[in-house]
Amino acid sequence: VKAEIITIGDEVMRGEIVDSNKAYLSECLVGLHIETHFQTSVRDDPDDMSEAFRRAVDRADVVLVSGGLGPTRDDRTAEVLSQSFTRELQLHEPSLEQIRAFFRTLGREMSQNNEKQAWFPSGGEVLPNPIGTAPGFLVEEKGALVFCMPGVPREMKRMMEEQVVPRIAARRGGAPVLRATLLRTFGLGESSLDQELRDIALGESVELGFRTTFPDNYLRPVARAASVEEADAKLAEISEEIRKRLGHIVYAEGDETLEMVVGRLLRQEGRSIAVAESCTGGLLAKKITDVSGSSEYFVGGVVAYANAAKIQLLGVPEVLLAEHGAVSDPVAVAMAEGVRERFGADIGVSTTGISGPGGGTEQKPVGLVSVALAHDGGTHVDHFVFALDRERHRVLTVQVALDWVRRLLLGAELLSPSLLRRQGGAAPPGSGASARGSSQERQE
Amino acid sequence: VKAEIITIGDEVMRGEIVDSNKAYLSECLVGLHIETHFQTSVRDDPDDMSEAFRRAVDRADVVLVSGGLGPTRDDRTAEVLSQSFTRELQLHEPSLEQIRAFFRTLGREMSQNNEKQAWFPSGGEVLPNPIGTAPGFLVEEKGALVFCMPGVPREMKRMMEEQVVPRIAARRGGAPVLRATLLRTFGLGESSLDQELRDIALGESVELGFRTTFPDNYLRPVARAASVEEADAKLAEISEEIRKRLGHIVYAEGDETLEMVVGRLLRQEGRSIAVAESCTGGLLAKKITDVSGSSEYFVGGVVAYANAAKIQLLGVPEVLLAEHGAVSDPVAVAMAEGVRERFGADIGVSTTGISGPGGGTEQKPVGLVSVALAHDGGTHVDHFVFALDRERHRVLTVQVALDWVRRLLLGAELLSPSLLRRQGGAAPPGSGASARGSSQERQE
Repeated sequence: VKAEIITIGDEVMRGEIVDSNKAYLSECLVGLHIETHFQTSVRDDPDDMSEAFRRAVDRADVVLVSGGLGPTRDDRTAEVLSQSFTRELQLHEPSLEQIRAFFRTLGREMSQNNEKQAWFPSGGEVLPNPIGTAPGFLVEEKGALVFCMPGVPREMKRMMEEQVVPRIAARRGGAPVLRATLLRTFGLGESSLDQELRDIALGESVELGFRTTFPDNYLRPVARAASVEEADAKLAEISEEIRKRLGHIVYAEGDETLEMVVGRLLRQEGRSIAVAESCTGGLLAKKITDVSGSSEYFVGGVVAYANAAKIQLLGVPEVLLAEHGAVSDPVAVAMAEGVRERFGADIGVSTTGISGPGGGTEQKPVGLVSVALAHDGGTHVDHFVFALDRERHRVLTVQVALDWVRRLLLGAELLSPSLLRRQGGAAPPGSGASARGSSQERQE
Repeated sequence: VKAEIITIGDEVMRGEIVDSNKAYLSECLVGLHIETHFQTSVRDDPDDMSEAFRRAVDRADVVLVSGGLGPTRDDRTAEVLSQSFTRELQLHEPSLEQIRAFFRTLGREMSQNNEKQAWFPSGGEVLPNPIGTAPGFLVEEKGALVFCMPGVPREMKRMMEEQVVPRIAARRGGAPVLRATLLRTFGLGESSLDQELRDIALGESVELGFRTTFPDNYLRPVARAASVEEADAKLAEISEEIRKRLGHIVYAEGDETLEMVVGRLLRQEGRSIAVAESCTGGLLAKKITDVSGSSEYFVGGVVAYANAAKIQLLGVPEVLLAEHGAVSDPVAVAMAEGVRERFGADIGVSTTGISGPGGGTEQKPVGLVSVALAHDGGTHVDHFVFALDRERHRVLTVQVALDWVRRLLLGAELLSPSLLRRQGGAAPPGSGASARGSSQERQE
């Protein structure tokens, strides 16, 4: 079974929007053991849309279309698809009533332009949209199933899960099973990962993909087999071998993010955390609180941008700031210990650095950052130079801080600048990132 | 001049990665007044890649390819393109030397697998990559210019700007000029926007696109003309008419984000800001400090997740928490006033709410949030119910808070729950968002 995904919209083709629908739809198809051979995007242009529709039914068995079902004048999917496959557009009364009802529940009047969302190609099946005004539809053409869904991601996802996936699953034959998993790593560059795993025995019908999502590198083993059980057994085997080789570099499998791992470990150990941020400006607290239920272990944080805030809210001694400057290991230590004490948390983490683009000096270049981790066994501090743009500097700093917490809770060695450099890690090759500095352990 | 963009990679086709390269490349082409007719993505599969290459040179004049130039075994662009267009693969010695030099500057050894990155299709031109190991290349086939670039976004962007854009610009003929701008709006739903602007006189060769990027709605006027000046004049005219109709709903034009507008206004007025966050968990501070130079007006913030933190770090009276609960207008007021006073800032902003999915009660449902804004004229507070998932709840709350600051500095009316509801605003239709509550103004 071959699939093609088509997304429609001028905003996509002018680059005004990053189209994440394609990734979501492809991922769903992987779950159905169906390979996506082509992803195509076209403008709201009848000729281009028609070419894409016709080409797709010639080369694919399942075609997923997203976009062009809205109420505005540039939404033309139903109309163009009808013309391409010589069908009529027909009014679907129940849909019109549902669209009216939808607006009633919002306490609003239906706009006139919403009516056209109730017209569909003849011979098709209407797919309800319980959370929006745009119903979808299914037509069968040249043996291919063509599903048309809204472009609004939430509506598209709900329709995919509730309407499209069950219909595809019902039609599927006994094609070979494809299963995949994701191993999330931090601290080793892509080339080094590849080198490290080059001679790994992949076994029959197992492939190993690499993928860089700054600042992480992901490994994606994919296994093909006659049955789900067989494919999963192959996956388990290769995953175990990878973990054996890479150790703590692998921080999670599947959908679990680093902040979720940190949350799980904190909850398991019944420990709490507080953060003191300068250069990361709230991003560390934001990441930790991205996790639902984080109030169980996250007490709070201080974003101390100004020196006065560091002194008053974190108790950083003024003399430290005067002597070493705000971006320094001693100040990072005082921030981590201060926030730990003031919030009464088990663990205090701090960041202070120069994310740029301004603010660097000869002695303290843009990119310099100190990270400190205060806990009942003492305070660990280290400084790095990440030669990255402002956003990536902040993202990488937060990832290092979270990874330190994870490694602390696992009893593993904390990543140091020299370790990161030696492993070509923390950033993809060619990103311009480098890490230098020296490690220093303080025991209370 | 028609363009097609091709991105290559299993990780894209399995949905493991959201491919933002296509959006970037399309946007660059808009700048060159070239329309992208097709965006195609294929797996690391020689047959699919070859079909995409051949189809593209048949229907486009400019083909931009991204991906498949890396060192790993699944990177096959040069090899497959050579086969598709019956060319030889040739070693390019200068590139090999550059790759070696690149690793030397990183203080690392070149991996053996990097050597293949120096092999290119014959008859082409090598495009240097100053920040990575993968050079790109250009071949001309059936009159189409085919540019192959790395998939790593930073390297691709640099190569596009420095190598590809100048080569395309040099070849361009006198095709009609296409110019676009972006008007950013907050507080009015997409349908209402469309309705509001339905009878607007677009003039000849002007189109108006709509685009929703939660929680904003963007308007994209696009003008076509014989010259840049003429197109820009059309754009200016339509933009002015839109601003006249929508007033403060339009908060910026072009690349300026809401946090950049807030920063610009604060700097202009010489005012400073501090934030106290509960449910937004650092996201408000993070947004403000996304702006380079924000240390000029951002003093700092407190993320007070636990009640103890609200009392100790913000001076929220314990009795308020006991009487009204942490999620309440009086506590929001105390947080905003507390952070303003403790940080010595001109403006204090606070958020306290239940972002969910847990934590709701009958009286205080998931989605309830209070926002307060303390300034020298008093403290404004209001509460909303945003029936959204955790992430979007936090994003929308932060946007409301930033928009309040913007409107305060402009002397405009602050968005209230009833205003948002009446206008169907703050969230796209069908998002399930609703806003209710009551407004309350406190004067000191």
